[in-house]
Amino acid sequence: MIDNKAFRGVVPPVVTPLKADHSLDVESLERSVNRMIDAGVDALFFLGSSGEVAFLPDSLRAQVLEAAVSIVDGRVPVMAGIIDIETLRVIEQAKQAESLGVDALVATAPFYALGGPKEVERHFRDIHEATSLPLFAYDLPICVHTKLQPDMLIRLGEEGVLQGVKDSSGDDVSFRWLIIGNNEVGHPLQILTGHEVVVDGAYLGGADGSVPGLGNIDPYSYVEQWQAAQAGDWPAVKTIQDRLARLMDITRHVKATVGFGAGVGAFKTALWQMGIFNTNQMSEPVQALTGEDVERIVAVLKREGLMEAAAPIKASFEG
Amino acid sequence: MIDNKAFRGVVPPVVTPLKADHSLDVESLERSVNRMIDAGVDALFFLGSSGEVAFLPDSLRAQVLEAAVSIVDGRVPVMAGIIDIETLRVIEQAKQAESLGVDALVATAPFYALGGPKEVERHFRDIHEATSLPLFAYDLPICVHTKLQPDMLIRLGEEGVLQGVKDSSGDDVSFRWLIIGNNEVGHPLQILTGHEVVVDGAYLGGADGSVPGLGNIDPYSYVEQWQAAQAGDWPAVKTIQDRLARLMDITRHVKATVGFGAGVGAFKTALWQMGIFNTNQMSEPVQALTGEDVERIVAVLKREGLMEAAAPIKASFEG
Amino acid sequence: MIDNKAFRGVVPPVVTPLKADHSLDVESLERSVNRMIDAGVDALFFLGSSGEVAFLPDSLRAQVLEAAVSIVDGRVPVMAGIIDIETLRVIEQAKQAESLGVDALVATAPFYALGGPKEVERHFRDIHEATSLPLFAYDLPICVHTKLQPDMLIRLGEEGVLQGVKDSSGDDVSFRWLIIGNNEVGHPLQILTGHEVVVDGAYLGGADGSVPGLGNIDPYSYVEQWQAAQAGDWPAVKTIQDRLARLMDITRHVKATVGFGAGVGAFKTALWQMGIFNTNQMSEPVQALTGEDVERIVAVLKREGLMEAAAPIKASFEG
Amino acid sequence: MIDNKAFRGVVPPVVTPLKADHSLDVESLERSVNRMIDAGVDALFFLGSSGEVAFLPDSLRAQVLEAAVSIVDGRVPVMAGIIDIETLRVIEQAKQAESLGVDALVATAPFYALGGPKEVERHFRDIHEATSLPLFAYDLPICVHTKLQPDMLIRLGEEGVLQGVKDSSGDDVSFRWLIIGNNEVGHPLQILTGHEVVVDGAYLGGADGSVPGLGNIDPYSYVEQWQAAQAGDWPAVKTIQDRLARLMDITRHVKATVGFGAGVGAFKTALWQMGIFNTNQMSEPVQALTGEDVERIVAVLKREGLMEAAAPIKASFEG
Repeated sequence: MIDNKAFRGVVPPVVTPLKADHSLDVESLERSVNRMIDAGVDALFFLGSSGEVAFLPDSLRAQVLEAAVSIVDGRVPVMAGIIDIETLRVIEQAKQAESLGVDALVATAPFYALGGPKEVERHFRDIHEATSLPLFAYDLPICVHTKLQPDMLIRLGEEGVLQGVKDSSGDDVSFRWLIIGNNEVGHPLQILTGHEVVVDGAYLGGADGSVPGLGNIDPYSYVEQWQAAQAGDWPAVKTIQDRLARLMDITRHVKATVGFGAGVGAFKTALWQMGIFNTNQMSEPVQALTGEDVERIVAVLKREGLMEAAAPIKASFEG
Repeated sequence: MIDNKAFRGVVPPVVTPLKADHSLDVESLERSVNRMIDAGVDALFFLGSSGEVAFLPDSLRAQVLEAAVSIVDGRVPVMAGIIDIETLRVIEQAKQAESLGVDALVATAPFYALGGPKEVERHFRDIHEATSLPLFAYDLPICVHTKLQPDMLIRLGEEGVLQGVKDSSGDDVSFRWLIIGNNEVGHPLQILTGHEVVVDGAYLGGADGSVPGLGNIDPYSYVEQWQAAQAGDWPAVKTIQDRLARLMDITRHVKATVGFGAGVGAFKTALWQMGIFNTNQMSEPVQALTGEDVERIVAVLKREGLMEAAAPIKASFEG
Repeated sequence: MIDNKAFRGVVPPVVTPLKADHSLDVESLERSVNRMIDAGVDALFFLGSSGEVAFLPDSLRAQVLEAAVSIVDGRVPVMAGIIDIETLRVIEQAKQAESLGVDALVATAPFYALGGPKEVERHFRDIHEATSLPLFAYDLPICVHTKLQPDMLIRLGEEGVLQGVKDSSGDDVSFRWLIIGNNEVGHPLQILTGHEVVVDGAYLGGADGSVPGLGNIDPYSYVEQWQAAQAGDWPAVKTIQDRLARLMDITRHVKATVGFGAGVGAFKTALWQMGIFNTNQMSEPVQALTGEDVERIVAVLKREGLMEAAAPIKASFEG
Repeated sequence: MIDNKAFRGVVPPVVTPLKADHSLDVESLERSVNRMIDAGVDALFFLGSSGEVAFLPDSLRAQVLEAAVSIVDGRVPVMAGIIDIETLRVIEQAKQAESLGVDALVATAPFYALGGPKEVERHFRDIHEATSLPLFAYDLPICVHTKLQPDMLIRLGEEGVLQGVKDSSGDDVSFRWLIIGNNEVGHPLQILTGHEVVVDGAYLGGADGSVPGLGNIDPYSYVEQWQAAQAGDWPAVKTIQDRLARLMDITRHVKATVGFGAGVGAFKTALWQMGIFNTNQMSEPVQALTGEDVERIVAVLKREGLMEAAAPIKASFEG
């Protein structure tokens, strides 16, 4: 039985390693997951946006969750993204995830078809009724084009529909309203920020944890930062954040493409160059980064001490 | 073998009738499809946005296509929407649709994960390689938040990747560039407009046909309009359009909700009140229209002669 | 006294010629205005978006209107843009324009400060009360980020607040609702389309005229097209539109910049190369087009017969 | 001579009190400005968005700055918004403000006409060349629809074009990149946050100060918060922020309108009810809040201790 407090602290959204044939690279996944757990992360979130969930067919999604549950083996809670277009499709994802033994589910607002707040609220209620697992709302307007309103989230928290919120809305004002309103009704929601560059402000403001994609690259610093926040050492929280923000430079100067291919493409490239992943293979239609983009990422990793200064650049996939 | 010219003229996106338990109402589907074919439509597009494709689980999508192919029985070509988030998931939809015997596929740009033009173009190339069926690009930025660029579409038409375009972009200037550019290279693409209220201007500008959601309600007028356009009777094309625009009022004054639930909700309610559908059941999380919304729709149908002036309003589902 | 019917037909938004020192080039303005009147345009719209109104200080705006009224000299009605941020500032523009003898005013929704429909409607009422001139609403959401709703426009038309609408909304469906609704209440509004590439469809749908920026370059064709529309010769209307759409290519392949600098920059460059303007000087912070951008524009002008095939390219300003 | 360090700390954007005839209420302005200076604010920003700059004609803008310079009388630096559409118009605002004796200027990116990054950068360079005063960039995409890029801002800081940035972008990630990048090149820019609800996180992240609209209502708490931040007392910084966030509720439940009229309308109503302003008069086309909206605001003020619990509600303007 997972304790409600289990979903606090550092919860990296796990990047999904792929082989050249687009199948799951379980060996790399195991290496990365074990490294994050060893670093002290509090939980792991599989099949989030950074996990390429949008790109993976249902069968591959199932393989990811099976491998996740097996590798994690109860050491930390496993959260699973159940990302699909509208309610009944999301519920099918929920049932598959639940049957594979995950500990909590994470769902966005519905997307593609235009709706209003009525439909969004009913969507989360429908999903909750269809599962016995704790349900997190994933606030991600850049992908689903709906901002989840704090009042609705808090109401669903009070009623037991939602266990928490993963906020990647980029709206720090709304995030603060959510934290304050949640506290006013007894803190039913676990509120996690998804913005790895401003975790310090989120912690100071009262967030219960973070879901940092960059935590795949440097889980140690995010764990150290969370511990400093728990200890009230705010200058340390801020100093660690600045270091992590500089590391985030790996994603900021990609030339070959934009958006997801630049962001997660850089994460995968870093993990590959650091020897954690076997390749930086991406899922169709996104192409892996190459050439100068790889070189720039390696330069940042060396500058920030994540790779030895003398390490050679891997120019092509190993396997 | 479907002729290239088959995808011209009036191609209604078929509204999907559901039973109260959310299963497919085959009886209503048969009535509606037969009515449209009897009216003289040139093809039928199943699992479009108006067909609630976003809401339907894969198993229900398969049932829709099976029923579609069976009911249509070769009388007109069957186009099938293969709507999913990213490429590999769309390809799975394509394979299911192809195995069920449809005649052409319709895919949007990828959505949810942010990308750039490189990824959009590769997406359509990947889908084309995975199927032997004609492929249409569905330009629907209001749902997928990417506008398909005319230059790319024409290039993919010339190379045989795309058979045509269903344009619901709401960008009539871009639509004109598409038509003109397509003509300059020999008209490889069949270009259909999805905006049922301005079909007259699209035909005058050179569109090859239309995909009018409102064609579910009044297929006769859209067929009459297409015939008038073929005959060069532009005043008639315009007059019919004005009548159809007035009929479109059924969607414009819904109070209970917004977006899809108002638009397709009104279509379903009209089909129910006209006796073509057994219910106006919607898919979760959208609720069927009721009360005054139904009354307003009936008033428009009577005003426009689609229902007898004395017909009573059906106050609840029949079955 | 200007007749209500005066604001129909072809009403080019006049491009404002500037000298190298950013002052008004009256000589070029006179040449261009006379050419458009000789071509048979029905009215002229000064200080529209194409007239660089956003860039011009109040004193220069006054010079433009003074020169406009003087040059036009009653041959056609003069419409004047009164573009400013919020109501009281717009009213000051209205008073300046009225004092300079223009025949009608054109105002957008307020911009910069966020508001709702109440404020937009009150804005137009306030302006109307402050002037005795006919007032047109300029629907330009790409610049002011508010779409004017057909119902509000028609209500203001019926009440005599608005004389008409210049629609550059890019929303052809809403434009059709506007036309149909306006007709249902007796046609109080003169409705003009600002989209020069799809004027044919707008005329077929019932528009009262057009405000084509490209009419600065080829007023003759727009006049010919309007006459064909009045005569019901729709194939001619369409054929002329296709030719004008190809001419619009001058704006579509600019490399040096984007947006306004590409669009109006191309118009000015064409007018300069055709010998109508003395320069293609733009207003700060926009830079005039040069080099290959000029060459591409000249190539289109020659291809479409607006310049002699053998004419040399003007490589720099003449004066 | 204003020291570079003068533009740090708490810099409220001054709300502009108006009389019922829309003229400047100098008496109320004096009361409010003196109260903020007495509370210990570090500078004052007149003619910002909260100061209704978008609504005020040039003559009224001049009156505001004249009164501001006279009332402040050198006690703190006076910053002045020079908000207009495009560069030459902004420069005219700059010259008027400079002639009236202000200490620094604040300009947004150009708006209305579409442009690209070239034009934005040239815009700030042009303004800088036209004035001898320190220039701040005002990053306000919600109003001007352009996000200022950190790299450009830092480059303009290094070159002496910009003295600082007032960030109201709502993009806390970009804000962090700006702070970090600015520090890396020697901190040429003074970086102020405009988001009054998350100042604590901004201070922890390294902001040089804040521009809180809510500082008009409770300047004491913002000053206390800044002093706590300077002393490194982060728990106090956070606790004060939570209190201020609850006070911000005055803006969150307005029923009569949306956007600016709700936000600044609530500020004015609070200042009126607290006896600092004589009225809550707004500028056309925005209407002052009334009835239940006033009651709700008063209830929040009482709950947060800004008004005595027993104070009666002012039901109408005093004068």
